[in-house]
Amino acid sequence: MIVVVCLNPALDITHYVPEVDWAGVNRAAAVYARPGGKGANVARTLHSFGMQTVLLGLVGGSTGAAVTAGLRELAVPAELTEVTGETRRTFTVVDDQGTTALFNEPGPEISAAEYARFRAAYTSALHSTATPASAVVLSGSLPRGLAVGSYAGLVKLAADAGVPVVLDTSGEALRRGIAAGPAIVKPNLAELRELSGRALADADGGADLAAVTTAAASLREAGAGAVVVSLGAAGLLAITEDGCWRAQPPAAATGNATGAGDAVTAALAHGLAVGRPWHERLRHAAALGAAAVAAPVAGEFSRDAYDAGLSAVTVNREDVSACR
Amino acid sequence: MIVVVCLNPALDITHYVPEVDWAGVNRAAAVYARPGGKGANVARTLHSFGMQTVLLGLVGGSTGAAVTAGLRELAVPAELTEVTGETRRTFTVVDDQGTTALFNEPGPEISAAEYARFRAAYTSALHSTATPASAVVLSGSLPRGLAVGSYAGLVKLAADAGVPVVLDTSGEALRRGIAAGPAIVKPNLAELRELSGRALADADGGADLAAVTTAAASLREAGAGAVVVSLGAAGLLAITEDGCWRAQPPAAATGNATGAGDAVTAALAHGLAVGRPWHERLRHAAALGAAAVAAPVAGEFSRDAYDAGLSAVTVNREDVSACR
Repeated sequence: MIVVVCLNPALDITHYVPEVDWAGVNRAAAVYARPGGKGANVARTLHSFGMQTVLLGLVGGSTGAAVTAGLRELAVPAELTEVTGETRRTFTVVDDQGTTALFNEPGPEISAAEYARFRAAYTSALHSTATPASAVVLSGSLPRGLAVGSYAGLVKLAADAGVPVVLDTSGEALRRGIAAGPAIVKPNLAELRELSGRALADADGGADLAAVTTAAASLREAGAGAVVVSLGAAGLLAITEDGCWRAQPPAAATGNATGAGDAVTAALAHGLAVGRPWHERLRHAAALGAAAVAAPVAGEFSRDAYDAGLSAVTVNREDVSACR
Repeated sequence: MIVVVCLNPALDITHYVPEVDWAGVNRAAAVYARPGGKGANVARTLHSFGMQTVLLGLVGGSTGAAVTAGLRELAVPAELTEVTGETRRTFTVVDDQGTTALFNEPGPEISAAEYARFRAAYTSALHSTATPASAVVLSGSLPRGLAVGSYAGLVKLAADAGVPVVLDTSGEALRRGIAAGPAIVKPNLAELRELSGRALADADGGADLAAVTTAAASLREAGAGAVVVSLGAAGLLAITEDGCWRAQPPAAATGNATGAGDAVTAALAHGLAVGRPWHERLRHAAALGAAAVAAPVAGEFSRDAYDAGLSAVTVNREDVSACR
């Protein structure tokens, strides 16, 4: 059982509007409303792979009820803690040119009592004897009201239960979470740059892989068991207990990159839970990330693109000084 | 008791975004979610005036539950018929330049059985002996699945119960509704132009009042007891059983014109229910319309602007041939 935590889920509303009038009245050609938030996307992906998973998190109000109903419709198992505040919406407008405007709501403020109830549910899931936890995924931003060290606390609770953690967040919450010793963290370049305070671009504006490797290695020294950096279309760079690896998809996937990072997180958790070696974890993660880009909706992926990607992704050991 | 019908209510979501990036990610400085739809706005306004009112209509899904919860929070009495489809959302983005982009969802498709249940609730409200109906307001567009003559049917049911109707809709639904004999219809210039097939603008692009009067008089001949044309900032023109009237606010109100028409409808229903003479109905309606423009949210109005407007609005009898 992979326990996935989504502390700030959302109802993701998408309007497809053929000819948008940004200063007028628009009628959508198609409207979708789906449960969202990074953790919810991870749980959906794991569920699609037939992995036993349960989504834990905080929901409130009628938007929270819509998230719960949407998860039920998708048959994603969830045990969400009810809060007083209203769950956030995200609103995305996509026009026929592919231009995308995203409008985010802040989400509810969580009280100490509400978070205590969540922690009790989380601890209970970690120690379940009926469905033993094989891995934990902590993914997304912290809602308002929670201490910045909250993820660190959840990493420690998992360690107490002997369950490895994949942590995907940013900023100070990530820094403190790393110090608590998660098995894997998965920063993207922007998150790695923010955390390491280093410039990571080369002269052409691409990723300076030597600098990225050094920055990622410093996160490993700070407490993470492994650091997997998502390089966007350029694939993944991993600094692990088994050396450094690079996974590259054959060609840059085109499509909707939102949710691709969540697909990578899901694949890493999957590989962690079933004990795959690193090169296999990374092959699956890179293929699934590219397959998510090929699907129009975050939390979904193209099965064909995934199958094709598995044999097309190249995974190589990197022999750089930071990894020796 | 004023019975207000809103067959296609909405959850109106507004994001205030200081510097909008129409091709990027935005975080709203403020988010509001309120029950909307023209009928809901009318009921809110009547309730603000202390009038006994009840809102009838059709709601479904979690968005419908949010509308119901919002009405309860505002203490607006409502007896809404549950349907299977999902109530629509409207999404408005307002930037600091006042630019407004509106994104509308289509709303649910209503089945014959669902509409029959609504009609039963409506008929019951019309014949209530505990809270006798003094007027009916039918306001807004028809949801998908309903026959274009649905408003005409509701006008007839009200006539059978001896209750006068204010009808505020457009197109063929308005044309058929007029033939059923409502007490008042309230087209705006665009609706009047569409229905009459006449050009209503003068050489300067303003309203050609003689043409407007002729077109409005033709709607009265077609079955409406009175026709009140909203001229936007230029006030109201009324063709009634007591001659023609013009109500003009002292100066063009600036602000959010959305919902101003609903405020006018509420005031006309109020005046109809309490038997005010036409010049008083129109004074209140023009003052309330301007006061709604001065308030930032549809369905609300500025009490100060309303009080000031009551003495500042001029109401004059128009002596034009169409009214003799």
